[in-house]
Amino acid sequence: MDIQSYMHSVGRAARTASRAMAKAETGAKNDALMAMARAVERDIARLLDANRKDVDAARAKELDAAMVDRLTLTPKSVAAMAEGLRQIAQLPDPVGEISGMSYQPSGIQVGRMRVPLGVIGIIYEARPNVTADAAGLCVKSGNAAILRGGSEAIHSNQAVGACVHEGLKAAGLPETAVQVIETTDRAAVGELITMKDYVDIIVPRGGKGLIERISSESRIPVLKHLDGVCHVYIDDKADLDKAIRIADNAKTQRYGTCNTMETLLVHKDIAARVLAPLARIYLDKGVELRGDDAARTLIAQMKPATEEDWYTEYLAPVLSIRIVDDLDQAIEHITIYGSQHTDAIVTEDITRARRFLREVDSASVMVNASTRFADGFEFGLGAEIGISTDKLHARGPVGLEGLTSLKFIVLGDGQIRQ
Amino acid sequence: MDIQSYMHSVGRAARTASRAMAKAETGAKNDALMAMARAVERDIARLLDANRKDVDAARAKELDAAMVDRLTLTPKSVAAMAEGLRQIAQLPDPVGEISGMSYQPSGIQVGRMRVPLGVIGIIYEARPNVTADAAGLCVKSGNAAILRGGSEAIHSNQAVGACVHEGLKAAGLPETAVQVIETTDRAAVGELITMKDYVDIIVPRGGKGLIERISSESRIPVLKHLDGVCHVYIDDKADLDKAIRIADNAKTQRYGTCNTMETLLVHKDIAARVLAPLARIYLDKGVELRGDDAARTLIAQMKPATEEDWYTEYLAPVLSIRIVDDLDQAIEHITIYGSQHTDAIVTEDITRARRFLREVDSASVMVNASTRFADGFEFGLGAEIGISTDKLHARGPVGLEGLTSLKFIVLGDGQIRQ
Repeated sequence: MDIQSYMHSVGRAARTASRAMAKAETGAKNDALMAMARAVERDIARLLDANRKDVDAARAKELDAAMVDRLTLTPKSVAAMAEGLRQIAQLPDPVGEISGMSYQPSGIQVGRMRVPLGVIGIIYEARPNVTADAAGLCVKSGNAAILRGGSEAIHSNQAVGACVHEGLKAAGLPETAVQVIETTDRAAVGELITMKDYVDIIVPRGGKGLIERISSESRIPVLKHLDGVCHVYIDDKADLDKAIRIADNAKTQRYGTCNTMETLLVHKDIAARVLAPLARIYLDKGVELRGDDAARTLIAQMKPATEEDWYTEYLAPVLSIRIVDDLDQAIEHITIYGSQHTDAIVTEDITRARRFLREVDSASVMVNASTRFADGFEFGLGAEIGISTDKLHARGPVGLEGLTSLKFIVLGDGQIRQ
Repeated sequence: MDIQSYMHSVGRAARTASRAMAKAETGAKNDALMAMARAVERDIARLLDANRKDVDAARAKELDAAMVDRLTLTPKSVAAMAEGLRQIAQLPDPVGEISGMSYQPSGIQVGRMRVPLGVIGIIYEARPNVTADAAGLCVKSGNAAILRGGSEAIHSNQAVGACVHEGLKAAGLPETAVQVIETTDRAAVGELITMKDYVDIIVPRGGKGLIERISSESRIPVLKHLDGVCHVYIDDKADLDKAIRIADNAKTQRYGTCNTMETLLVHKDIAARVLAPLARIYLDKGVELRGDDAARTLIAQMKPATEEDWYTEYLAPVLSIRIVDDLDQAIEHITIYGSQHTDAIVTEDITRARRFLREVDSASVMVNASTRFADGFEFGLGAEIGISTDKLHARGPVGLEGLTSLKFIVLGDGQIRQ
C-alpha cells in the first residue's frame, strides 16, 4: 500500500465530507448518533469477537497488563459506548448558533455564527472506545474525522467503525465523515499530521510520549496537554475541614489522572494543624510524602523533596508538600513549577480567592473545590474530546464548542462603506 | 551584538513583564495609554525629526514611492497616533471579565475568565504608526509586546517607543511591557519567531511576502491572513439598486485593501439588467473587467478571464466577473476559488440569505452589505491588530479580545469529586 496516496485520498474524502457535515441538519446528525448506538448494541458479539483478536495478539506480544486492560472491551464497556453516543445526541447542536448581533453606526448588524472547524485528525492509543466517542463528538459538531487508533486495537476499531458508518448512512450523511485508518503502518501518522490542506486540527489522546512526538512533528495545530502538575494551596484563612477534604480528594480519589494534585502548598501558619491529620490520611492510604525542610519538621515520615519533585507529575501515590510564607509565594511556586493545567486555593478570604483566580495562569483555577473536577462532564460540557493547556483556541476541558470556531456575520440593507 | 542572546534577554524581560501586566489594574493601563498619547503630542517635533532621518535614508536607497509614503509621518499622522491611543484607553478592559458562571450538579459553580495571552510578537514593515497602535492594544489587553518594525523605520520606531516607555513608567507599569527591537539585523526576526518559551503568538503585519515567510518559518502560532479574494454574489432575487451600490462600493471604494471585492458572481437571470449599469460605472472609474464567456456576451469591453483570474487578489482596478446558474454554483465557486476572507450575497430572499450565511465558510459572511465593512472598527471592536483567515483562535478582524484567552474558573464550598 502506498501510504502517502492512501492518506491523501482519505484527506480529500474527509474535506469533501466536511462540507456536507457543515450544513447537515441537527436532526440528521442526531439520527446518525442514535443509529450508531443501536448498531453498537446489536453488534455486541461481533465487537467482542473483534476485540478478542486484538487482546489475544496483545497478550502474544506480551504487551504490559495496563495496556491490555485499556484495550479490552467488555459487555459493560460496549454498552457505555452506546450510551455515550446517545448522550452526545442529546447535547445542543453548537453549529449555526448566532450570538452578539448588534447594530453598528453604519447601520449594518454584526454578530458571530458558530461553525465547524472542518476536518479533525484524532490519534490515540489502545482504547477502542475512543473510536465511538471521537466519532460522535465530531459528527455532532459538524466536522469530518480521521481516526488513527493504535495498531494493537485495529480489529476493534474497524468493528466500531462499521457501526459508525452504518449510523451515518442510515441518516443520509456521508460515510466518509468518519474514516478509520485501515493501516497500522506508522507512516500514516506522519502523513496525517502534515496534510495541511486536508486536516484542520490534530487531537492526540494517550500517553505523554505520543503527545510530545505528535506536537513536535505536526505541521497542523495540535490540541493537547502535556503535563498535569496540579497544585492545591491551603491558605491560613482556610476552613480546616474543607482543606483536609479537598487535599485528600485531589490526591487520592484517583492517582493516575491529569487533574490529580501532585504538589500541596500550605501556608506556614496553618501547616501544623492541617498537615498532622492530612499526613495520617495519606499514609493510611499508602501515599508517599516528600516535603521541604519546614514540612519535614512537622511530619517525621516525610522524605526530602528535591527540586525535581516540584516539576514532577507522579501519576502515582506520591505527593510533594511545601510550606509557603504567604499567597505570593504560593502563586510564585505555581508559576515556576506548574504546568498551567489545574490549580486550587482553599481559603475563606474573598480577596485572596480573587487574587488567586486572577493571577494563576492555568486552564482551570479553583476556589474551595478539588482539582479532580477539571473535566468536561463535571464542567457541564456534556462530553470531552480532550484537555488543552495551550492558550490559543480552546483551553481546559474541550467539548463540542472546542471543535468549532466563530465567523462574523453581517446583515445589511444595502449599506456601503463611506 | 550577539543577536540570539540579545533576543533571549528581550524575551525573558517580556515574559516577566507579562506577569505584571496580567494583573495590572484597568486604571493603570488607561493611565499609561493617556500618558503615551500626551508624550506623542508633546514630542511631535522629535518624532518628525527622527522620521526625517528614516525617510532621507529610504530616498537615498531609492526605495519605491509607496514604501516611502507608508514610512512618512506628518503632523496629522502623529496626531492620529495619539488619538488612537486615547481611543484604546476608552475601550472596555477585556481582562478579568467573567462569563457563564453556572452551578453544576456537584454543587461547584463553573464559568470562564478572560485572560491575556502573555507575550505578543509583532513583526511589521514600514509604517511607524503600528508601533503606537500595537503597543496600545497589547497594553490594554494585559499583554507584553515585542515590536519588530522594518529596518527602514528604525529611528521613527525608537522615537515612538520612547513615548510608549514614558507612558508605562508614568503609570507604574514595567517599561519592558513594550520592547522595540533595537537592531535591524534580520536574524532578530528568526529568533523572535522561534522563542517558544518567551512568545505566545506572532502577528505579522505587512505584505504577503512577509506574512508567508513568517508563517512558514515560525515555531509559534501566527495570527494572519494571506489572501483576500473576496466575492459579491448578486442573486436573481436581489434588489437592483442595492446590488449596484454594493458591487460598486466593494470594488471601487479602495482598490488596495484585503476586503475589496476581486470577483463578482451574478445570477444568469439578472445578469443583463445588473451588468449593463455596473459595467458603465466600473469602466468610467477605469476598472478593467475580465469575464467568463457568458458575461462577455453582455459586455463588449470585457477581456476573457482565465482560470488564474478566479484565484487572483488583484489589489488593483481589475475585476473578474462570472455568470452563475444559481446559489449552489455561486457557493461552489467561492469554496473553490475563495480565500475564506469576506464574501457577500445580495438578495431579498431570506432562505437564500440563510443558506449563504451558513454554507460560505469565510471569516466574514455578509448579506446586503459591502465587503469593505470587514474591519475591526466597522464591526464595533474599537480597534484592530489584524485580520485572521485561520479558523483556530481568532477569526476575521481581531481586536482586544483576540489578544486574550479564556480560562475556566471554579467556585466551590468544599466540594470533592465522588
